Amino acid sequence: MSFEPPPRLLLGSGPSPVPQRVRDALAQPTVGHLDPFFVELMEETAGLLRTTFRTENAATLPVSATGSGGMDSLIANFVEPGDRVVVGANGLFGDRLTDALGRAGADVVRVEADWGRAIDLDELRSAIDAGTDAVCVVHGETSTGVCQPLEGLSAACRDAGALLLVDCVTTLSGQPVLLDEWGIDAAFSGSQKCLGAPPGLAPFTAGERALEKLRGRESPVRSWFFDLSLVLGYWDGEGGRVYHHTAPVNMIYALAEALRIVAEEGLEARWERHRRAHEALRDALAQLGLDRLAPDGEELWPLLAVRIPDGIDDISVRGALLTEHGVEIAGSLGPLAGRVWRVGVMGEGARPEPQERLVTALAQLMRRDPAPALEALEAGWAHASA
Amino acid sequence: MSFEPPPRLLLGSGPSPVPQRVRDALAQPTVGHLDPFFVELMEETAGLLRTTFRTENAATLPVSATGSGGMDSLIANFVEPGDRVVVGANGLFGDRLTDALGRAGADVVRVEADWGRAIDLDELRSAIDAGTDAVCVVHGETSTGVCQPLEGLSAACRDAGALLLVDCVTTLSGQPVLLDEWGIDAAFSGSQKCLGAPPGLAPFTAGERALEKLRGRESPVRSWFFDLSLVLGYWDGEGGRVYHHTAPVNMIYALAEALRIVAEEGLEARWERHRRAHEALRDALAQLGLDRLAPDGEELWPLLAVRIPDGIDDISVRGALLTEHGVEIAGSLGPLAGRVWRVGVMGEGARPEPQERLVTALAQLMRRDPAPALEALEAGWAHASA
Repeated sequence: MSFEPPPRLLLGSGPSPVPQRVRDALAQPTVGHLDPFFVELMEETAGLLRTTFRTENAATLPVSATGSGGMDSLIANFVEPGDRVVVGANGLFGDRLTDALGRAGADVVRVEADWGRAIDLDELRSAIDAGTDAVCVVHGETSTGVCQPLEGLSAACRDAGALLLVDCVTTLSGQPVLLDEWGIDAAFSGSQKCLGAPPGLAPFTAGERALEKLRGRESPVRSWFFDLSLVLGYWDGEGGRVYHHTAPVNMIYALAEALRIVAEEGLEARWERHRRAHEALRDALAQLGLDRLAPDGEELWPLLAVRIPDGIDDISVRGALLTEHGVEIAGSLGPLAGRVWRVGVMGEGARPEPQERLVTALAQLMRRDPAPALEALEAGWAHASA
Repeated sequence: MSFEPPPRLLLGSGPSPVPQRVRDALAQPTVGHLDPFFVELMEETAGLLRTTFRTENAATLPVSATGSGGMDSLIANFVEPGDRVVVGANGLFGDRLTDALGRAGADVVRVEADWGRAIDLDELRSAIDAGTDAVCVVHGETSTGVCQPLEGLSAACRDAGALLLVDCVTTLSGQPVLLDEWGIDAAFSGSQKCLGAPPGLAPFTAGERALEKLRGRESPVRSWFFDLSLVLGYWDGEGGRVYHHTAPVNMIYALAEALRIVAEEGLEARWERHRRAHEALRDALAQLGLDRLAPDGEELWPLLAVRIPDGIDDISVRGALLTEHGVEIAGSLGPLAGRVWRVGVMGEGARPEPQERLVTALAQLMRRDPAPALEALEAGWAHASA
């Protein structure tokens, strides 16, 4: 080994702390991408992803790219040039969807909300009409810590003959994502948020309505790499696996192990732990004068975005937190830059010990008494587990 | 650890054997993608990639996807709809380029050769005219074990005002790739071939002529994920690093370590070792009646494709080689399916010990006396090192 990364407690916007078991899996000897052992692991991984997405979709797999490659894949497959696409835009990732949809030649209709607020569902629904081909929304807007309610969107999409396409990067396994029950037609996520694997893979799932759209395209999918019909020839065992690209074998070892850990904990218990962790930390940080940006009912459990009080300098506090205490939290972007911190409540970071370490260090750097915050943290966890 | 992959000697078309040092690096604790430690590692990785590509290109980085994501990235950035692109097609990867170029809206001119032969350089050059926007060739055609000579292509491209775009997936660090000297404008590779890292990253480089084309595009790059101008905002330190996507941190640890190993051995010594290994194994396999497909002067050092003699069944021998001996070699595709084996001579596989193991096992399964083949192998290495 020629290098050793500094020890970091990852409480930023992701990656989240990677458990030792996952790192051990990552480092297992590489096998071929068509090795019988690996093919079996692919089956297992796809099955675990289905459980985690709460879906029966056969077309469920990790895209061989990072989370935003999942976004590109979603748009490349299910949006055609000239399609009318309604997109929810209330943060960086909604803007990114807008950008990517424009590149794909879509006629984009933006439904906006302020950064830090959910999009009004009535506004979203009323933007959908018979000419709408797809609706794209970000479930967990990581740039602002807001979770977008999705009620009624699926029905509106089905009435209009449109697809419902959802970015679940930050919510998957950290907040309920009920893919089939909610009528989501296709979605993507990232390996490095609540799943606790390293960054590098984009869990992806598509249902029959989305696949129908894919089969009926007038123009080919513009990306060879992301073309789901080719990727499925490798991932879907039916009729033998045809080589498409060389799968990122070791990253899939890690993802499989991370998904096993999710399954061992149980998906509902894991959601609940993220909720508890969010609420306990919210109460603790409020004692330090760090109030949550998102109003009640719009909060994203895996990411707590808080306003930085006057007199506290974003960069210097975050820098000292990282270099003196080894704790990473994230700053903000766009209209929130310098005014908001984003604290990850993801995977192994959503536990009392790492939160206690963060609260203690932040209190010291902000020159506040840590006691009330630590008491609130403890009370939050105790209350939650009562 | 919930699982343990079976021990495999990877002598197929890639992945190649991953050294323990690289696996150790892979399993190091994850840090954030904007952590100062990681930013330093990005600088080092880009520098090592430049050395390995023999280029001064500032725009050199690992694309966050597997090798074929590098292909998509190359085409997405440097080919516009309506561009006239000459493509060399003499195997699966030339066909793949053709497919991807068609999806990108290019007007594709194919210059073909039989699978197992290089493309005639005169034919390639004479297909290039003033209307040509780009020439795409596969340097190492992994599907057939042929290395494409590139002499004079760059001059013809420059005369025509066209870009020279090259797939170096299998050649990088296993056979000379002199990016700047040969006038290649942009190229991509894969982490899992001669570099000896796990699959999952696509080393990528682009020079000034390619970047000029990118800047002057009439239409935006269709892929948000692969848009090099956005990726460079993160990878190119000038003016601070702007978040684009979350880099696959641990995979970059592994690639950096693999590139350090390449640098320690020395690039020219590594090329030479691959040549020796290729020739020694060629002689050894010939003793078993397995003759090389590629004629002299067209051989791809990192991949030895050999004809399967009559009476030897492809599937059953390869199957027994894998399950009884733990040795992976690759079959073939398209017109060569069932008739040709492809043996990797890549990275740590390009050494006497793994080759001896392969030759011994193959001789046994083919019911041949191993002695002449092992003698030829030994003589090949001894001769080479004399």
